[in-house]
Amino acid sequence: MDRERFEKQMAFALEIDKEKNIFRQTHLSGHGRRENDAEHAWHMAIMAFLLQEYANQPIDIARTMLMCLIHDIVEIDAGDTYAYDTEALKTQKEREAAARERIFGILPPDQADCLKAVFDEFEEWETPEAKFAHALDNLQPVMLNDSNDGSDWVEHSVGISQVLKRHARSHEGSEELAAYVRELLEKHLKDGKIRNE
Amino acid sequence: MDRERFEKQMAFALEIDKEKNIFRQTHLSGHGRRENDAEHAWHMAIMAFLLQEYANQPIDIARTMLMCLIHDIVEIDAGDTYAYDTEALKTQKEREAAARERIFGILPPDQADCLKAVFDEFEEWETPEAKFAHALDNLQPVMLNDSNDGSDWVEHSVGISQVLKRHARSHEGSEELAAYVRELLEKHLKDGKIRNE
Repeated sequence: MDRERFEKQMAFALEIDKEKNIFRQTHLSGHGRRENDAEHAWHMAIMAFLLQEYANQPIDIARTMLMCLIHDIVEIDAGDTYAYDTEALKTQKEREAAARERIFGILPPDQADCLKAVFDEFEEWETPEAKFAHALDNLQPVMLNDSNDGSDWVEHSVGISQVLKRHARSHEGSEELAAYVRELLEKHLKDGKIRNE
Repeated sequence: MDRERFEKQMAFALEIDKEKNIFRQTHLSGHGRRENDAEHAWHMAIMAFLLQEYANQPIDIARTMLMCLIHDIVEIDAGDTYAYDTEALKTQKEREAAARERIFGILPPDQADCLKAVFDEFEEWETPEAKFAHALDNLQPVMLNDSNDGSDWVEHSVGISQVLKRHARSHEGSEELAAYVRELLEKHLKDGKIRNE
């Protein structure tokens, strides 16, 4: 064992423990507490495995699961940016770029490069894996919010144009999952949980 | 899309949200709150990817990550059984077998069989993937507990014979990770955080 290499790996493993303290706006099912990033990533990775048959194109499932697991690690420094917070969205890229350097940089160089590449692939939204991971990143909170009668949309007085913008590219990863999400959104719009504009 | 199949998949995806409410005895780093099963599984899956070079035998990393992600799902019904709770350990197998049937049974039959097989493989502790996943299941809480100066061992007045029993088979998955864990255990035994017997 190269001890210096191993200690970098363990330092990173310990550092990412902090992701469990980054809370999102989504609430757990059963009108539970807010969900954190680590839980969200775990949920997405399992959903990637189970729902892979709905990806528009064949995907490398190991890479997709890893992408789901690490896609929010930068939020340890940058914080969670709520999808409908227009002020925070302006500085999100810059905050996340600095976090990407610091956090992945804890790893040995080869693994830092590897995880940065997977993270960048997600952000660039071009490969079938990235597109499918984004479809899941959108589906998972809608699933929870639907189970809670749309309470997260009500709390933030979210309008239909904001929701549609958020979900505008989901269909690139999965036409079928995107259609299902639209179905749920229409139900909640009709029920007044999403604000009509 | 086979809608009936899809609804079973989504029902399972929603059901496992409950794993985020199953709390373990381990505390987060920085003397944080107790960790839940979903967070633990997320952490293990990333560590599986990063530390795979230390597995004694070549492993299928996708299968190992999936195994890490789902290995505690039965605890939604069966609860977390603390590694040093001798009474709860007596009924653990029976409680987990019933949970395995109910929870994986929510899925379409082919996926229920698939996840049960991965779950059983972990429990049977025979394949390189299962042995490595167990090594990580042991390493991850030791890493957190070490970062908190051994406070979980102190809280439960855990003795060295219990700890050594818990870690007795880690070396089957990874001699190198098991040696590192032993090094940490010896430090905490010397410091009196683990009870000498």
